[in-house]
Amino acid sequence: MLTMNMNYKNLKESYLFAEIGEKVRTYQREHPGEHIYRLGIGDVSLPLPCTVIKALHRAVDDQAFRESFHGYMPECGADFLREAVRRYYGERGIELSSDEVFISSGASDELGDIQDLFDRSTAALLPEPAYPAYYDACVMAGRRVEHLKTVRERDFLPEPEGRLDAGLIYICSPNNPTGAVYGRELLRDWVDFARAKGSVIIFDAAYEAFIDDDSLPKSIFEIEGARECAIEICSLSKTAGFTGTRLGYTIIPKALERNGMSLNAMWRRNRTTKTNGVSYIIQRGGEAVFSPEGQQEIRKNILVYKKNAREIMRAIDDSGLWYCGGDNSPYIWMECPFNMKSREFFDFLLNRAQVVGTPGVGFGAAGEGYFRLSAFGSPEDTREACSRLRSVLRT
Amino acid sequence: MLTMNMNYKNLKESYLFAEIGEKVRTYQREHPGEHIYRLGIGDVSLPLPCTVIKALHRAVDDQAFRESFHGYMPECGADFLREAVRRYYGERGIELSSDEVFISSGASDELGDIQDLFDRSTAALLPEPAYPAYYDACVMAGRRVEHLKTVRERDFLPEPEGRLDAGLIYICSPNNPTGAVYGRELLRDWVDFARAKGSVIIFDAAYEAFIDDDSLPKSIFEIEGARECAIEICSLSKTAGFTGTRLGYTIIPKALERNGMSLNAMWRRNRTTKTNGVSYIIQRGGEAVFSPEGQQEIRKNILVYKKNAREIMRAIDDSGLWYCGGDNSPYIWMECPFNMKSREFFDFLLNRAQVVGTPGVGFGAAGEGYFRLSAFGSPEDTREACSRLRSVLRT
Repeated sequence: MLTMNMNYKNLKESYLFAEIGEKVRTYQREHPGEHIYRLGIGDVSLPLPCTVIKALHRAVDDQAFRESFHGYMPECGADFLREAVRRYYGERGIELSSDEVFISSGASDELGDIQDLFDRSTAALLPEPAYPAYYDACVMAGRRVEHLKTVRERDFLPEPEGRLDAGLIYICSPNNPTGAVYGRELLRDWVDFARAKGSVIIFDAAYEAFIDDDSLPKSIFEIEGARECAIEICSLSKTAGFTGTRLGYTIIPKALERNGMSLNAMWRRNRTTKTNGVSYIIQRGGEAVFSPEGQQEIRKNILVYKKNAREIMRAIDDSGLWYCGGDNSPYIWMECPFNMKSREFFDFLLNRAQVVGTPGVGFGAAGEGYFRLSAFGSPEDTREACSRLRSVLRT
Repeated sequence: MLTMNMNYKNLKESYLFAEIGEKVRTYQREHPGEHIYRLGIGDVSLPLPCTVIKALHRAVDDQAFRESFHGYMPECGADFLREAVRRYYGERGIELSSDEVFISSGASDELGDIQDLFDRSTAALLPEPAYPAYYDACVMAGRRVEHLKTVRERDFLPEPEGRLDAGLIYICSPNNPTGAVYGRELLRDWVDFARAKGSVIIFDAAYEAFIDDDSLPKSIFEIEGARECAIEICSLSKTAGFTGTRLGYTIIPKALERNGMSLNAMWRRNRTTKTNGVSYIIQRGGEAVFSPEGQQEIRKNILVYKKNAREIMRAIDDSGLWYCGGDNSPYIWMECPFNMKSREFFDFLLNRAQVVGTPGVGFGAAGEGYFRLSAFGSPEDTREACSRLRSVLRT
């Protein structure tokens, strides 16, 4: 007897970003020739750094000759790249061994798959608002979800409460969608909570490269005790413009054990069974990101996006509306003007200013009345979008 | 309360190919300088075709400039590649729509993940011997497995029996490890069985490009009724040398429904939630495989491997031992000589001839006493390995 995974029936019809894409396409069909200013989906606009391009070309050439050709890669990642990531952490004072680093096709590919390590009876604690894929992956697995209440006064960052009982805890810092960053004390509270409860934190650090303020943790492993309770999922998508090139890495400390089982060993077993590793070519591109030249070049790109973020912040400043994020993050989370609901403001902004943002309610009910703007557009588009935003907020 | 996925405790310590890799490394440490002839793991030895290399370089260049840069790709695959796969099927008389094609990072990445669509109470029917990842993925999901008995007289190809009750059925043709190919009638029997029982066939077609005999089906969709009961999982690994470059595709017909749910729609929902698509660069390489020049070039490489296969067959012919496969397939499945068990023959062959094969018992208990040889080595290595094989089989 075959039964489908009926949990899929509990999913909303379509994924948030697919729905927005459709709305924008419809608008374009009805208004051909109009330019759309995309501050919606967090896709980058700058091309890959020169050092990465060169490394990719070299790797393609390797695949052209029998002597340098690479077949199956190690399932958990090429040694050269695991080692590069290990050094990247080491430079920040976090000592890892390279087999605590798992190379992946990107953070979004891991955030759901990693749940395979946990029994489906294990509930998840999700902040709200949050990246919708966390929730949807839990629904697909039939996993119970408890939403953490957040308040605007604390930039929508949740705090642990003793009464809460959860196995998995998703934390994203710098946060998507709010752009707020967990401070050292707050993150320590969560690590202490997870250790006390026997929980595991899935720490989504996809935007860590945007943190300039040294007092803010870029990795959960800067917090004492995190190795006993956390998995860190990272990406080169926003760090190095890899959204369409695809590469990420996941840190699972060997000290992380539950029910007498090593999560590092379990994930290795999972990867060796369910994948054949990540493309050799792309891994060579990733290695170049971690070279001194690569780090300089990505830094330059990140500064462009950070300048965009400041431009957006200034545009909202003028309106007097509340917002957070933008400082150590590529996202700005603002309240909707004129008491609008978030989907209403989405339509308003698209129709009146041809600017695309993301309605806050798409990140959970707690996001109603708020709106996410992304700093990943081109400087020209962002400048024009900000000028249009200013003028509609004045009306 | 957090509970780990305790099903992992039911897995064997290490995955078959990891175990073999370790044995070979140990041998090499103890015998430095000795050349090893690898007919074990099915990894290719010929570099990527020239047309593919050119396309990869062009795609890398696209990522270097703002005007041609590609960010997030469509999660289910780029239109250009879905369309190329659609045409590839169309040329063989199988009409698909391009949204029945899902681009993946490779077959091994899909064979386990696809199980997410089915409730864990749904049991799986696995032929034995079989590719061990099918079984391991079922164990990880806590899925009940029933092994299909096979006999040497029918080249280890299983036949459906009315008494069998299963939801998922894994079929691999040309088969790994036996190299045998399901004939049209046998495949029709399985399709009829699946339709009658409401089962879904996961058809692993990773080696389809090795079929020359027009009377043998390369795709399950050549069989009437398969669109209502089958998913086909394909790979460019063996077809075009992509083992380390990573690309594959999965066909889920829109006509495939169970419990009133469309499996095509469910997988689209899964992919849009749990991935951000496959690398733009690699997808352009894949597109080149389906061009007329690409098809000519991969054909030339496949003929090299097929010549290797014939060489291996001739070496066994001389010994009088039973074997199957090799004709429309890159694998040869032979009985072990001297009444040896399969791990015993592995050690014997490694120590006496420095030839690495794969012990049949690694593919399930039914494989005990048999041995898999792969035709993916270089012609020079294969020739020398065959001469060594001949001489140890004579002893």
